[in-house]
Amino acid sequence: MASHEPRYVAVAQRKQAELAAAIPVEWRLPAHVIPEGMLSIAESITIGPKSYQRVGVMDIPRKCGLLTSKELEITEKYDVRGIVADMAEGRLKAEDVVRGFCKRAAIAHQLTRCLTEPLFDRALQRARELDDHLQRTGAPIGPLHGLPVSVKDTFNIKGVDSSIGLSALAFKPAKENAPLVDLLQSLGAIVIAKTNIPQTLATLDSCNHLFGRTLNPLSRQWTAGGSTGGEGALIAMRGSMVGFGTDIGGSIRVPAMCQGIYGFKPSNGRVPFGGQQNGQIEGKGRIGLQAVAGPLARSVADINAIMAEIVPRAELFGEDCIPGSWSQSIPLTLDPPHKFTIGVLKTDGLVTPLPPITRILNEVANKLRRTPGVEVVDIPLPPVLPKCQALAGRLMGVDDGSHMLDLIESMDEDLIPWLQGRMKRGKALTVVQLATLQAQRAEVEKEMMKMWTLSPQASSVARRVDAIICPVAPHPVPELDRYNAVGYTSTFVLLDYPAGSIPIRSFVESDLEIGREMDAPVLGSWDKANRQLWDEKTVDRRVYLGSPLSVQVITPKQHDSQLFQAMEIVDHAMQSSTNAKL
Amino acid sequence: MASHEPRYVAVAQRKQAELAAAIPVEWRLPAHVIPEGMLSIAESITIGPKSYQRVGVMDIPRKCGLLTSKELEITEKYDVRGIVADMAEGRLKAEDVVRGFCKRAAIAHQLTRCLTEPLFDRALQRARELDDHLQRTGAPIGPLHGLPVSVKDTFNIKGVDSSIGLSALAFKPAKENAPLVDLLQSLGAIVIAKTNIPQTLATLDSCNHLFGRTLNPLSRQWTAGGSTGGEGALIAMRGSMVGFGTDIGGSIRVPAMCQGIYGFKPSNGRVPFGGQQNGQIEGKGRIGLQAVAGPLARSVADINAIMAEIVPRAELFGEDCIPGSWSQSIPLTLDPPHKFTIGVLKTDGLVTPLPPITRILNEVANKLRRTPGVEVVDIPLPPVLPKCQALAGRLMGVDDGSHMLDLIESMDEDLIPWLQGRMKRGKALTVVQLATLQAQRAEVEKEMMKMWTLSPQASSVARRVDAIICPVAPHPVPELDRYNAVGYTSTFVLLDYPAGSIPIRSFVESDLEIGREMDAPVLGSWDKANRQLWDEKTVDRRVYLGSPLSVQVITPKQHDSQLFQAMEIVDHAMQSSTNAKL
Repeated sequence: MASHEPRYVAVAQRKQAELAAAIPVEWRLPAHVIPEGMLSIAESITIGPKSYQRVGVMDIPRKCGLLTSKELEITEKYDVRGIVADMAEGRLKAEDVVRGFCKRAAIAHQLTRCLTEPLFDRALQRARELDDHLQRTGAPIGPLHGLPVSVKDTFNIKGVDSSIGLSALAFKPAKENAPLVDLLQSLGAIVIAKTNIPQTLATLDSCNHLFGRTLNPLSRQWTAGGSTGGEGALIAMRGSMVGFGTDIGGSIRVPAMCQGIYGFKPSNGRVPFGGQQNGQIEGKGRIGLQAVAGPLARSVADINAIMAEIVPRAELFGEDCIPGSWSQSIPLTLDPPHKFTIGVLKTDGLVTPLPPITRILNEVANKLRRTPGVEVVDIPLPPVLPKCQALAGRLMGVDDGSHMLDLIESMDEDLIPWLQGRMKRGKALTVVQLATLQAQRAEVEKEMMKMWTLSPQASSVARRVDAIICPVAPHPVPELDRYNAVGYTSTFVLLDYPAGSIPIRSFVESDLEIGREMDAPVLGSWDKANRQLWDEKTVDRRVYLGSPLSVQVITPKQHDSQLFQAMEIVDHAMQSSTNAKL
Repeated sequence: MASHEPRYVAVAQRKQAELAAAIPVEWRLPAHVIPEGMLSIAESITIGPKSYQRVGVMDIPRKCGLLTSKELEITEKYDVRGIVADMAEGRLKAEDVVRGFCKRAAIAHQLTRCLTEPLFDRALQRARELDDHLQRTGAPIGPLHGLPVSVKDTFNIKGVDSSIGLSALAFKPAKENAPLVDLLQSLGAIVIAKTNIPQTLATLDSCNHLFGRTLNPLSRQWTAGGSTGGEGALIAMRGSMVGFGTDIGGSIRVPAMCQGIYGFKPSNGRVPFGGQQNGQIEGKGRIGLQAVAGPLARSVADINAIMAEIVPRAELFGEDCIPGSWSQSIPLTLDPPHKFTIGVLKTDGLVTPLPPITRILNEVANKLRRTPGVEVVDIPLPPVLPKCQALAGRLMGVDDGSHMLDLIESMDEDLIPWLQGRMKRGKALTVVQLATLQAQRAEVEKEMMKMWTLSPQASSVARRVDAIICPVAPHPVPELDRYNAVGYTSTFVLLDYPAGSIPIRSFVESDLEIGREMDAPVLGSWDKANRQLWDEKTVDRRVYLGSPLSVQVITPKQHDSQLFQAMEIVDHAMQSSTNAKL
């Protein structure tokens, strides 16, 4: 009799068995290859910070012996355009490509718990159909013919669960595809897996009772980030060519930062968002803050390759999308022909970045100053910027949150540790309060226009700044469950500015500034909490050694292909520098 | 002692005196020129249908003797591009142009009560500045140098009232310009007046206690429409080159239809909407249904001339705007090079159009079928279309409406007759109800995508239809206070489809179908009410003789320059027909 067992446990066990069964026996890692610290699911949830050792698993796919040399080549030597071209022109079979990535995804999962729904069988079946099609017609099925991609667990795929880590939603397969899934398939891409997320989707460490905690493959002492954490780990381990996540507080950019890959949060309407399971009341995004979907990838070129195909077709698949082109947009600056002007925004005025974050931003700015065709300007702190984090937070919580908590409680699930004390039933706003918040947002949007003109006037006949660099977070990649303020990321969802995350280099000894304290005055509670990630009384700074340091790039609202352009400029400038990339 | 007088009366008298004083004595029409029926303000509000005689005033500006032959030429012989070119190249002085239009606007006002705030002095002052600038620099101040324009009373202009016909808001001048006003001024356009609207802005007949009822210059027995009714009358009388209104239920397209001019309701984000006084709680549009701003003009070419300058700059002025271009967009159809495909949508499934409306739509469709490069297809009734009117209506009323009613009651104003019994304090939605409505809207948007693919699938790699023609209203221009269902217009705000109104021809004897009854089954209460506008027991059909008959053109969401293209095709096809235009 298991009458004392919480209701979710049996569901979780069934789900885990299903997941394990989807990985062929011959793709299973021998036990000795899996490092200690790949704890049980329950332990992975409760372990908290400081308990995992510095163990990276990035080299295991290459060393474990499961992947053939051909499979290693397939998964390591190509970018998106290259692998699609080789399949479209018959030099590679889609089946071989998909099998290579499925196998590598299975390996990545056994090392990081990055998957929720392996879709290997159906992906291989589809790959064979594509190979047949190519052989029969001589033409690829679409511009992404055979490309192995992965999606966050929230995206519906017909016949597959969108449990989002909640036992209440397990074994309730979706009835239709999310429009993005349809769009990807129409292009010839093949979804090989869905990936792990946090309970409630509202934390930045991807951990839940169905699938456990996703571990950072670079080192399991650092958070893998969230809420698209599984995708971050999978892409970093080359288990998929491109992953799709969603971002409302930073859920694409944060895992990209944590794994040292590239994340691209588009503006609203550029990538179909519909057909998501997020455990919230339907329509909430339309009245509060709207999350957006976007890619995580291993290069700016891969982001470009995928967005160039999605953006012009988005409106044909998503009712939430608008017409788009992916040409180089012409920046609206004062005097064309002009230099590409990049602003440097050092702080959000709410949380002062820790020294290594300021340092990396300065490094990038200095490098850009020496880049031909680029002008670098300092961006004064916009007076309304410090208000953005709170406003975004309030717009995320316009209802009482009971829908999600009802789902969790219906199966006797505990809240994961980070949510305990943070997640409670709230009080829904009235429509007048809600309208007032949205009016405040409009006022903030208007004030923030001045940041782009560098003038006291919001309105102007031209912008002065094409793109801005700023931190992704005010701290380096932290230990488990220690991610702090999301203002640096949520602000650009509030403002609907497209925003990307670019890895710059690894954290090195000289970044430690051992013995040196921050002397800037404490700005408030968020700032105080952030300093605990640097204060030697509360953290061993050496934990950050080797972790990826990133910067964020933003452009004005709906200037998404201009963001790609800016990311390319920053990335190229830094790749030609002497600093080692990850 | 005036203790029994409602509080608003004194304010209204003061406002009327102010308005009268802004019209120079030498621009006042002699009493004998003003037709009977220009009743007192109070009478104009309460007079209701059937009480005004068939009296048109369109020819009075030409005949009254107040305008010089040069002023007649200035106000009658130019389109937007032509008049701007003549000013920019020094063949016309901006001061002469602006004086001509101010004078004609003053005449129009004395015949129709179309103005709320004449801005003649400051407009002339600005015109002289522009002339000086041109003389000094040899260059025009912007691409719309000297163009006289007008705006609906809702748009804020610094130092000018935005009373929107409510005594509670009178004598409270705006503190800053609406972004659209700033944008127009940056282009060189000169706002010469603000124009009349209905009490609450929520009716389709422009009538309030401060400014009375705007009369239709074509014939005062027909409604001038609303809520941008003053603008409709002013543009029809050539008292301004282009007018700007706002549209949530049809408030640009309806007055365009009623006056036989062109109205263009853009998609959201193409024209700055901010800086409006609408008597609603701030932020309401962002959570319910968002009204949009757009032009009324006398030709498709004039709409093109103005939108081509506004759309690419909109994002620089309005925080509510997105980047835009005004090039010819490439329609997303199956097989380019292809014909421009125009669909014909005969009904919204809720209110069957009256016979002359169906007839005019068929005439246009037939003409288009004979137009080279155009393919015409029938659009089957989308199953969700009949739901749109109610959904749009509910999204317009998400709060309890008390803000507006408090304003009205604070000054003891009565509701205007049409609103009596229709406007009451309601019950605000909860945020969950609101989110549910927005989720229903998303579902409707998705279903409606099939209308453009002519397939059972919403998602498709291409659209089949470039534009659709349908009625503006299910009835001809009705008598005062008899406008019926707004579903044909509000639906395309709900869906954010850009939509334009095009005058086709005047209602003629053969449109009367005297003695013939409608035999289609009655669809419901809205349909039943609509038939009262055709049933000879409840209306004398001959009232419609000579009234303008229009069609509406729509394109998919955010395809605004494609709408212009479609309007140009329809307009050109009909102008080359033998039917007389108005």
